[in-house]
Amino acid sequence: MPADTAMSVVPLALKTAMDRVSGDIDQMFDRLLAEPSDPRRRLYQAMRHAAIGGGKRLRPLLVRAAADLFHIDRMPALRVGVAIECIHVYSLIHDDMPCMDDDDLRRGRPTVHKAFDEATAVLAGDSLQTLAFEVIADGQTHPDPFVRVELTAELAKAAGAVGMAGGQMMDIAAETADFDLAAVTRLQQLKTGALIGFCLEAGAILGHVPPEGRRPIRAYARDIGLAFQIADDLLDVEGQVDLTGKAVGKDAAQGKATFVSLLGPDRARQQAEMLVDQAIGHLAGFGSEATLLRTIARYVVERDR
Amino acid sequence: MPADTAMSVVPLALKTAMDRVSGDIDQMFDRLLAEPSDPRRRLYQAMRHAAIGGGKRLRPLLVRAAADLFHIDRMPALRVGVAIECIHVYSLIHDDMPCMDDDDLRRGRPTVHKAFDEATAVLAGDSLQTLAFEVIADGQTHPDPFVRVELTAELAKAAGAVGMAGGQMMDIAAETADFDLAAVTRLQQLKTGALIGFCLEAGAILGHVPPEGRRPIRAYARDIGLAFQIADDLLDVEGQVDLTGKAVGKDAAQGKATFVSLLGPDRARQQAEMLVDQAIGHLAGFGSEATLLRTIARYVVERDR
Repeated sequence: MPADTAMSVVPLALKTAMDRVSGDIDQMFDRLLAEPSDPRRRLYQAMRHAAIGGGKRLRPLLVRAAADLFHIDRMPALRVGVAIECIHVYSLIHDDMPCMDDDDLRRGRPTVHKAFDEATAVLAGDSLQTLAFEVIADGQTHPDPFVRVELTAELAKAAGAVGMAGGQMMDIAAETADFDLAAVTRLQQLKTGALIGFCLEAGAILGHVPPEGRRPIRAYARDIGLAFQIADDLLDVEGQVDLTGKAVGKDAAQGKATFVSLLGPDRARQQAEMLVDQAIGHLAGFGSEATLLRTIARYVVERDR
Repeated sequence: MPADTAMSVVPLALKTAMDRVSGDIDQMFDRLLAEPSDPRRRLYQAMRHAAIGGGKRLRPLLVRAAADLFHIDRMPALRVGVAIECIHVYSLIHDDMPCMDDDDLRRGRPTVHKAFDEATAVLAGDSLQTLAFEVIADGQTHPDPFVRVELTAELAKAAGAVGMAGGQMMDIAAETADFDLAAVTRLQQLKTGALIGFCLEAGAILGHVPPEGRRPIRAYARDIGLAFQIADDLLDVEGQVDLTGKAVGKDAAQGKATFVSLLGPDRARQQAEMLVDQAIGHLAGFGSEATLLRTIARYVVERDR
């Protein structure tokens, strides 16, 4: 299936929003990562290699869609999106390293340790993580310091040992231990769900919504986070390298428990679709300002990359 | 020279302050890194291995000493100290990895990738970096969100590509390029100076000192940062493994330009002593509240580990 036929599953309004967010993110990374004229240049080149011009930018898009709910300006949502993408990209760089997943290909291009070297990959990942917090704490993100510090605290929780990094540790354990459905669900809630959850939470923080008013969007985030991961597991089984831009069939080769290995592809797909319906249901209290979130929920399971 | 004789170069007041800060830091890490009862346990064990019970804790001590200038309570200074130590320790874990310095020994114990494995070392370093920002953004660090967000922004600058990580990239370049004294100075100002600078800056931020009032302590930080690094280079040439707890003679073996290789040991030592005098001179406007900072400045070049 050629790539342009595949793209036809993406509704036009979503495609437009995605393209705009992707363009904005690339532009901001280009500015943030301007190459210095000293020996740090190689570090910046590696960060640019990983951060610019690739990926679905699903997380910044989710921030934008959540910010829509509260009529937030473009720049705060974009800067938070860039910060989240810094965390996401750093985790991919480190994850791809020989001592972790040992992947040569990411987004159809050589991984950072292949295009550069392992030491540079470690430092590029480290520096992107730091950049996330530098961007989010900067006064340009939001004039209210309380908003900025709440964003910082929540991003740190989503990214660290109680979130994404903890989930990656579980993922390594899953290669040698027997994980049941509950354990895989918990693993994925940390590994990918926590950061996706923060994308939605960030919209509420920018909108000055107090924690007790965030129940529907947290429920939405939990459901699409899991649906997204099930879809990822299905793509690992059924996807095509030329579309996903990364190696496929890795989970099965490693004998790793996934939603697909535990449920089988048909029940996994049903489960993902049920989660999407449920996610959209949580948005019932919103009107047209939740259109983008509803469209994204559908896309999350229908995508082919 | 037995270890207890060596310790006699540390003045008693400094020894007391060091022991107190070290105890506090260990206790706080012990609380922050309580082992969970799930497969993330290994990650926490690795973080604990690196973070607890080792090191001089010079950076948290500097935060305490800088906080003394502005009569800051114990807890804010301690929490900032823990955050800085998180950054420092994460950088050591990643630096020790085979693709970087390939060290087996740190603080007299196996490095994290030796005691655990490389993947765990990557994740433990990553998670400690995240923890730094989680700790600093938490309301317990300071009631004023503006203080917390300024601490976050400055710590990020000190740690990332414009600070410590950028300096580490330069350090890698220094192995294969000809670095002169200006280049080595710039490298060290980023690699170790930026984080030491933040220790002092943090005292001023906690004390609500506006940036224009921070000139003397920034000058102090710059001078002792360089003096500290020169002393480190001297220890690499003249130090003893049993005292420093890490490999010595590595710089010369790698043919890396250092202050000692460029100046020779005698001039390097003179330079370090001159910098310490100069650093103490910058504190002339302070009275007894700067006693600890003055004592630390002397210790920085007289230490044997």
